[in-house]
Amino acid sequence: MTWGVSDTGEAAQTVPGADGPGAKVMAAERGEPARVVPAVRPLNPRVVALGGGHGLFASLSALRRVTRQVTAIVTVADDGGSSGRLRREFGVLPPGDLRMALAALCGDDAWGTTWSRVVQHRFTGNGGLGGHAVGNVLIVALWELLGDTVQGLDWVGRLLGAHGRVLPMASVPLDLAAEVEGADPARPGQLAVVRGQAACASTTGRVRSVSLIPADPPACPEAVAAIRDADWVVLGPGSWFTSVLPHLLVPELADALITTRARRLVALNLVPQAGETEGFSPHTHLEVLADHAPELTVDIVLADRGAAGGSAAQLEKAAGLLGGRLMLADLAMRDGSPRHDPRQLAGAFAEIFEGE
Amino acid sequence: MTWGVSDTGEAAQTVPGADGPGAKVMAAERGEPARVVPAVRPLNPRVVALGGGHGLFASLSALRRVTRQVTAIVTVADDGGSSGRLRREFGVLPPGDLRMALAALCGDDAWGTTWSRVVQHRFTGNGGLGGHAVGNVLIVALWELLGDTVQGLDWVGRLLGAHGRVLPMASVPLDLAAEVEGADPARPGQLAVVRGQAACASTTGRVRSVSLIPADPPACPEAVAAIRDADWVVLGPGSWFTSVLPHLLVPELADALITTRARRLVALNLVPQAGETEGFSPHTHLEVLADHAPELTVDIVLADRGAAGGSAAQLEKAAGLLGGRLMLADLAMRDGSPRHDPRQLAGAFAEIFEGE
Repeated sequence: MTWGVSDTGEAAQTVPGADGPGAKVMAAERGEPARVVPAVRPLNPRVVALGGGHGLFASLSALRRVTRQVTAIVTVADDGGSSGRLRREFGVLPPGDLRMALAALCGDDAWGTTWSRVVQHRFTGNGGLGGHAVGNVLIVALWELLGDTVQGLDWVGRLLGAHGRVLPMASVPLDLAAEVEGADPARPGQLAVVRGQAACASTTGRVRSVSLIPADPPACPEAVAAIRDADWVVLGPGSWFTSVLPHLLVPELADALITTRARRLVALNLVPQAGETEGFSPHTHLEVLADHAPELTVDIVLADRGAAGGSAAQLEKAAGLLGGRLMLADLAMRDGSPRHDPRQLAGAFAEIFEGE
Repeated sequence: MTWGVSDTGEAAQTVPGADGPGAKVMAAERGEPARVVPAVRPLNPRVVALGGGHGLFASLSALRRVTRQVTAIVTVADDGGSSGRLRREFGVLPPGDLRMALAALCGDDAWGTTWSRVVQHRFTGNGGLGGHAVGNVLIVALWELLGDTVQGLDWVGRLLGAHGRVLPMASVPLDLAAEVEGADPARPGQLAVVRGQAACASTTGRVRSVSLIPADPPACPEAVAAIRDADWVVLGPGSWFTSVLPHLLVPELADALITTRARRLVALNLVPQAGETEGFSPHTHLEVLADHAPELTVDIVLADRGAAGGSAAQLEKAAGLLGGRLMLADLAMRDGSPRHDPRQLAGAFAEIFEGE
């Protein structure tokens, strides 16, 4: 049994334990002092994670260990690979990042992990199915059959025994456009507009800003509601311009993110991404975030201790300008690969959610 | 509560009822005679249904209402449509008839019926996915991932909450070859060999016999075991030469069908099939069956009363030559479509399984 201290200073049982509700009274009767430890936040917080691709997969793989109330809100601007082909063939939202988020939230048992492997399985070869992930095909089929984006995703979530829900950030497929400096190597200083998520992510120039086409897309209503009802909102890690910032460009989502009573956490990447954030220091990511959403405040900036390195002071200052504080932790895989270790990241999330 | 008579003539409770196990004793104590009705066969018989395509879908849609112990053994010679494309693209068994059998056995709740609709859903259009059924894609993915045909099908069965199991008749993809009279309209009397299930099914000539390529394929071991352990084996309805007879050409399956202690039921089609059995009378189907498996005996031939029509006497004789008896019942849909009504067919199966 864990004891917390409420605002009135009175000891209160916050986690039901084997001792039962009478334990405190019995302790008082025996003349023992009530143990006083720091306040315990409600467990199982409602957490909304925003992003796309492998970055969101990493945050969700951590969050599923911390709470069962996860809502992922996923970019829908992908135009490459299997998602791009399905989008062009059927006029649907690109399903790939939605599928990956669902797979990350799969149940822990043989059922959940097997179906997660199935939806993540990608066909090889150059035939009609070559390159398609199974889950992408399944999601498009459910959309055709049920005629409802969110219902279709919820059915895949049920199949996976998912620890939460996956929603698209907008109700229509989007395109990204990036303002890029030196996209043409022959003209290094010149600004140009690069269109399409795949092109933006692989540009050799320096991305300055990103925008959506259409510029004012309808947000997914369930996503707006989830942000408003959340205890915590987590932005990143992930491809900064193509997976993290786009959410701030959907007006209703941006408004919900700015006005929600939830606390806001920004999880930074471990390394700059070749192409879109090449040469960026960690604090540059925060400056770019502020450029794209000037009204947004942040409570916590979470960064890997190694990645922050010598720029921790600058990063702390940038976090402060956003209204928050910096938290450093060891988050990287120990094999040296530039990926978040889900257990380490989960530990950091738990500490933040419980400690705030 | 139902009473049956055991071999010793002693009344015995065969179906547990609200009266409880003491009911018989109490009736005897009250001096009432025990009710004597015909012996009741064990419920929930182990039934193996052999076939492919829409015919097998019909028998399974009926059998799932009668028992939970259904095993479908499915032809794997399809070379047309989605199955043909997947077979060529990935070198796997054609999944279409397996998928359709799994869908037929789906659970009755919203879960089972929704996933059944999903696996049966077929994409439209001319893109890479156009024409593919979702379940075909899912089955091929599971085969790639698990490296085991039967395990992959069992996982789809679990997804659907299937009332039984679906197995391929052979462990390798097969081709059909048919000896056809008048395949070339310019030479009406001449025999020719037509190769491929799709070509056999749509020939304009008269099919005389069918054979497999390779001629001696390995049977699926679980299919052989299911036939040996069955209470009943059901052949047909279905495309006679391309879905029903091929099972008799797999040596291990034919041997199991001939030597099993299970009783054998042949369910005839409602109408001759354009192309492969055009102009066939019902009893011709039985003669062709005997031609392809001379050692096979049959216990029951089940035919629709309307389809048998004036040829019931000939049909009864043909059934007798196979060692069995004819049972006529109203099996067709009442809307006049040439399809079996699953409820009517289930009623006939139940009567046969309980009465024998």
